[in-house]
This record gives sequence, C-alpha cells and structure tokens, in this order.
Amino acid sequence: MTGLDVAPGSPFGLDNLPFGVFSPAGGAPRVGIRVGDHVLDLAVLLGDPTFAAPALNPFLARGRGRWVEVREEVTARATEDVPDGAVHAVGDVTLHLPFEVADYVDFYASEHHATNLGRLFRPGAEPLMPNWKHLPVGYHGRAGTVVVSGTDVVRPCGQRMAPGDAAPTFGPSARLDIEAELGFVVGTGSPPGTPIAVEKFAEHVFGTVLVNDWSARDLQAWEYVPLGPHLGKSFATSVSPWVVPLLALEAARVPLPGQEPPPLPYLHETRSWGLDVELVVEWNGEEVSRPPYREMYWSPAQMLAHLTSNGACARTGDLFASGTVSGPGKHQRGAFIELTWGGREPVTVQGEERTFLQDGDTVVISGSAPGAAGGRIGFGQVEGSIRAARPR
Amino acid sequence: MTGLDVAPGSPFGLDNLPFGVFSPAGGAPRVGIRVGDHVLDLAVLLGDPTFAAPALNPFLARGRGRWVEVREEVTARATEDVPDGAVHAVGDVTLHLPFEVADYVDFYASEHHATNLGRLFRPGAEPLMPNWKHLPVGYHGRAGTVVVSGTDVVRPCGQRMAPGDAAPTFGPSARLDIEAELGFVVGTGSPPGTPIAVEKFAEHVFGTVLVNDWSARDLQAWEYVPLGPHLGKSFATSVSPWVVPLLALEAARVPLPGQEPPPLPYLHETRSWGLDVELVVEWNGEEVSRPPYREMYWSPAQMLAHLTSNGACARTGDLFASGTVSGPGKHQRGAFIELTWGGREPVTVQGEERTFLQDGDTVVISGSAPGAAGGRIGFGQVEGSIRAARPR
Repeated sequence: MTGLDVAPGSPFGLDNLPFGVFSPAGGAPRVGIRVGDHVLDLAVLLGDPTFAAPALNPFLARGRGRWVEVREEVTARATEDVPDGAVHAVGDVTLHLPFEVADYVDFYASEHHATNLGRLFRPGAEPLMPNWKHLPVGYHGRAGTVVVSGTDVVRPCGQRMAPGDAAPTFGPSARLDIEAELGFVVGTGSPPGTPIAVEKFAEHVFGTVLVNDWSARDLQAWEYVPLGPHLGKSFATSVSPWVVPLLALEAARVPLPGQEPPPLPYLHETRSWGLDVELVVEWNGEEVSRPPYREMYWSPAQMLAHLTSNGACARTGDLFASGTVSGPGKHQRGAFIELTWGGREPVTVQGEERTFLQDGDTVVISGSAPGAAGGRIGFGQVEGSIRAARPR
Repeated sequence: MTGLDVAPGSPFGLDNLPFGVFSPAGGAPRVGIRVGDHVLDLAVLLGDPTFAAPALNPFLARGRGRWVEVREEVTARATEDVPDGAVHAVGDVTLHLPFEVADYVDFYASEHHATNLGRLFRPGAEPLMPNWKHLPVGYHGRAGTVVVSGTDVVRPCGQRMAPGDAAPTFGPSARLDIEAELGFVVGTGSPPGTPIAVEKFAEHVFGTVLVNDWSARDLQAWEYVPLGPHLGKSFATSVSPWVVPLLALEAARVPLPGQEPPPLPYLHETRSWGLDVELVVEWNGEEVSRPPYREMYWSPAQMLAHLTSNGACARTGDLFASGTVSGPGKHQRGAFIELTWGGREPVTVQGEERTFLQDGDTVVISGSAPGAAGGRIGFGQVEGSIRAARPR
C-alpha cells in the first residue's frame, strides 16, 4: 500500500475527485473516482457495496452527508493508503454513462445565445421573448438518448422545409450542429408539491458534467412551433464520463453578470451560483471557440428552483443542462449556427471553410475551472464523431 | 377451482383483459389482469415470476409473442380453472401506476383541438402552424410526475402575465385545466438509429391508457415561447390504472378521417390505426363532454414512426399520448379552455357557472370502445381531485 502518484498541476488533483462508472478489462461496471491518471475502485477502497453498481444513482440517493464523507475518506486514503487492487490506470478501463438519467431538462440560460438564436430563427423580430428575463426558459428533452462521450452520432434524418420549397422533404439533416453546455446532476430529489428553494441547491445537486446537445437545425426550424424543439434534438445528447462534484467547485463560484429586472422572490439568490468554468470547443482537433460559463444569465440554482416551483418533484438522476454557453465575443459562441451566423460566415477548420458538421467530423468539448488548491480542475471532455445517415 | 363469474355486458369481459399493478391488503404490488369485478394475480395463476413485480415493465420487455401467449392462457384459465388464491375482488385491492415511465412524449394530434388552441393562444393569426398537417407535432413531458388515477393534484404555482399587467407575478394558477387524451405504452423498444416503421406499431406498442394531462393555462401562455410548454404541464399527468392491450382493440380500428396533403412516405399507413374510442369527461359528477378518438388526424402508429424517424431509440415503458381529443362539436371538446372558449363561455356544472378548475373539484375521464364480442370494452377511468395550492 502506498499513496497515489499525481503529477503536479494535474486537472484531476485531490481538489477535484470526479465520479464515474468504469469497467476494468473483463469486469462489470462499477463506480470510480479519477485521481491523476488513476481510477480508484470505490467498492474495493471503501468496502461500500453501493459502489459495486453500474450507475452512480444509489450513491447519489444517499445524500449530501455521504457525498462529503466519501470525499473526505478518499482524500485521506489517496495520499497514504491505497491497496493495489483498488487502482486502475485510466487508459486500461472503459468509461460508461455515469448515471441513469431520470428526466432531462434543457435550459436556455445564456443571454448571448438566446439573442443570437432569436435573430437567426426569427429575423426582424425582437430576439428575446418577453418572458426571457423573468424566468429561465427550458423544456424537457429525451432522457433515453443521453449517451456517454465517445459514442458515435449517426446523422439524423427528418423533415425540413428549405426556403422557397413548396412542401417539406424527408432526408438527412444538412445543418447538424453542436451545443456546448454544462449539465447538473440531481443527487437527492424532492417530494411532489415541495419546490427546491435556490438556497437548497447544493443539498440536492451532486455535480456537473459537460454536455453536447447535438442539434439538427433544419429539423428544429420546421418543427419547433408551437410546442418547442423535438426531433431536432432527441436523437442524441452526449455527456462527459466524469461528474465533477459541486464540492469541488467552491473556488469557481462567481456572481452572475447581473439580472435586470431583478427576478421574482422565488428566484432570488443570496450567494450566487455563477460558475467560472471555461469550455473549449475543438472541431477536428482545432480550437474554434472558448465559451465562458461565467457569462450565463441564470444560475443553476435558479434553474432548479424554477423547475420545481410548480410542485414538480425532482428525482435522483435528473439531469438539467444550461443550454448553449455563449459569451459576447464571436469566438465565445458554443454552437456552430452562431459561430458561422447561420452558415453565412464559414470558419476555417484545418484549412477548410466549414459551416455545419460533415460526416466523419469529430467535436471535443473540454472544460476547466479554478480549484481549491490554486490551480485548475478539469471536467475531462465530451467527444463525439458523426457517422453517415442510414439509408432508408 | 372454478371459472370466473363475469356479468354479461361487463366492460371487463374476456375480450378486454387489461393489465395493471395491484396490491392486496397488506401485500406487495404485483401484476394483475382485470376480469369483470375480479383481479387475477398473474404470478399465482401462471407461475411466472415476471408478474411478481411492482411494474409491468419486465413483462412488456418480453415482447409481443409473450403478450399473445399470456392473453390466450388467461382466456383459457379464466373460464374453467382459477385457483382461489389467484383471485381478488377489485374493491379489495389498491391500484398503482401500472408501469415505470421511461420517456413521456405528448402529441397534439387533434385538428379540432389544435385549431381551437391556435385561435385562443394566438388570436388573429392562422390557427394551425404550417407544419401541422405534415408531421404529428409533439414534445417531451416530465416522466417523473406521471401519477396513477386517484392521486390528488395540488394546484400549481407559477409565473403568469395577465393582460394589462406590467410585469409577471407568481402565485397559484387561476386557469387550471384538463386535457382528455389516450396514451400508448411502448412494450419493446428499438435500438438507436433504427426507426419504427408505421407497420411495426403493434410489435412495439403493448397497449393504451387514459391520460389527463393537467394544464395550467396561465403559466403555459406566458412560458411557452419559444421552447414549448414546461411548468404549465410538468406538475402532474394522470393515467388510468388498467392498460388495455392493442390486442383487445382490433374491433375498434377505423380509418383516419382523412389526411390532406398526404403525409410523406415514412408516415404512410396501409391499414390505419384510427381508433373508435369514446371518451366521457365528468366534472364533479356531471358529464360535460364526449371526445371522440376516431376524429384524430394522426394515428398512434404515425406518432411512433415520427418519434423514432430521427434515429431516437424507444424504450420499454415509454409513454406517448395523443394530445387532447376534441371533436368538431362543442360537447366533444376534451379541454375546458375549449369548452368554455378561454373562460368566456362558462358551462353549467351541478347548477353553477364554471370555467376553469376550483379547489375541491373532481374530474373523471372514462373510455370505451367496440370489443371483439360485439359489446363494448372499458378503459376504466382516470380520476383526480384538485387540492389548494400550498402557501409559500
């Protein structure tokens, strides 16, 4: 037995300790924590069978007291006392979807993104709807198509109505896009009729993942009135394999950029959950954007308070995502439709002019934030490659 | 041992055989079939442990071959050979949510309803959006707040912006409504990237339930642009406890009323899944509406084909509902906002003029359809009562 070797400056130092589900070669999926380039098998390390499960859900359901306790135990053990059987090299394991997704809600919390999309989808009209600064607008997505990073995305087919066409046609999406987001994982739910107040956020939400909300813009533009996006989004949503606990993000908390008019009392925050997380979007290996999460208008605590304000219960495994993270600068936009202004201003990727995704393209979104030790902690990455549509 | 006693003309005759989850006094929840006023305990009757489960999902996942087989076995056994320990009186058992809901999608498949709502929500504009006759418009709802008939509904609070108000306010919904719908329960899912063709509908969908999609119209009207309904719907969706198998609905199949323009090829049906199900809506014990399901524009087979046309997988336990069932006549409207034309034309209920739901109100939606034996089979009912909003 010995302490773990962690390189100085590692994004997975002891101030991070993200949770995931892995399987060692030939083994069954189980819960692990990443430390440096190691994965700790928690069922072996701590002797707690809750971790010998193919999803984080049973552990999440234990509640914040247990989340704190496990973090403390792992911190203590990692520095001095790790049996060999509890350690795997991260390169030797397979990573899985870290939790069973109960309900999935996607918000629309970036003012820059909502303004850009409003201009692109409804040219000539006021870009922000009248409700936008009063409530975090959101909608339910498809929980069953949330997949882990590394899962290929087959180009979706669907109906689209091109400008000038007399009737819609069916075929592969020609405007396949990404949305770079942060997702929040509910650890402990709430009974029906009992809203989760903004100040109770950290008692219910366990942690955060990177999200790529793949979007077929041509399908979406045709279908989304009046009941919102559906098939344009429901084919796949990718998440990173490591869930970074809120407990690791205290040093990343920042005030929101400002809310005017002030939101209604049920959305007031005394200490804000703005987060200084920086995302990086790489398209075929070339960085094309750095969306700053600190620019988001609505905080995740406000999102959850709103989500439950009508008495809807939350459940262990609920995932709610921020919506596309876009900052004020062109190279801070988290979706290609914004970055290329609806496809009219191509960007150069590996020497080629590009607008939307082509078959074979790979997108990697990574993220990092200030950690408690003075350096930066990493979210890892969410990666996906586009495969050709299936012939019909 | 003896055959079961079933009254002639019972809506739960041997041509129905709906499945549910019940618990006998002091016992654990398990799967049963309703015959007349009896509930058959299938784990006891058939010796199959799949039925000693608190949800239909394990049985649903077995697939259509097993659904047919169990129906045949139960039909044979019910007439001649039922051990006493396998029979309960329906009045002696507690009924539960019959299946674990995976994803929940709500469609908008009635032309009469969509036209009425378009006129009410967007006065002066074309009531049907340009996409409406080309695809079954739908959106994802909240799976975690689907509840079984008999569950009280607490009046939701939320943001609303009354006409003439300068800013939104937060408080109990003043326009609480119902939506009378049919829901379809997916038995066997589909892998990612593999759409379910319209002609494969009955291989994947096990059966149908009655649905009351409770709706807070004031919350919905303020929040729904541009991403669709969210908090105005997500507080509760009630379903009936008995899942009527598609196998019981062959005599109820009718052609659709007509689709013009003809839908794109992926939505073509050779033999339609229009259904002659008649719903009855009772408000505090008084019948106020008889929505005819046979008037629906889109069939459930078209809904599922559309839902998966982009490659989204379906899962055992997925629920998709039709949207409000409304016919052309005023007394065929399945939502109070239509029945009272936005609250401007009250209806008389038990001698009182009424528009939207008041605390203490009870709504019962029942349904029936032609059965194979020449009479009518029953869907039972979905019932709910309104409790006052919780003080904040």
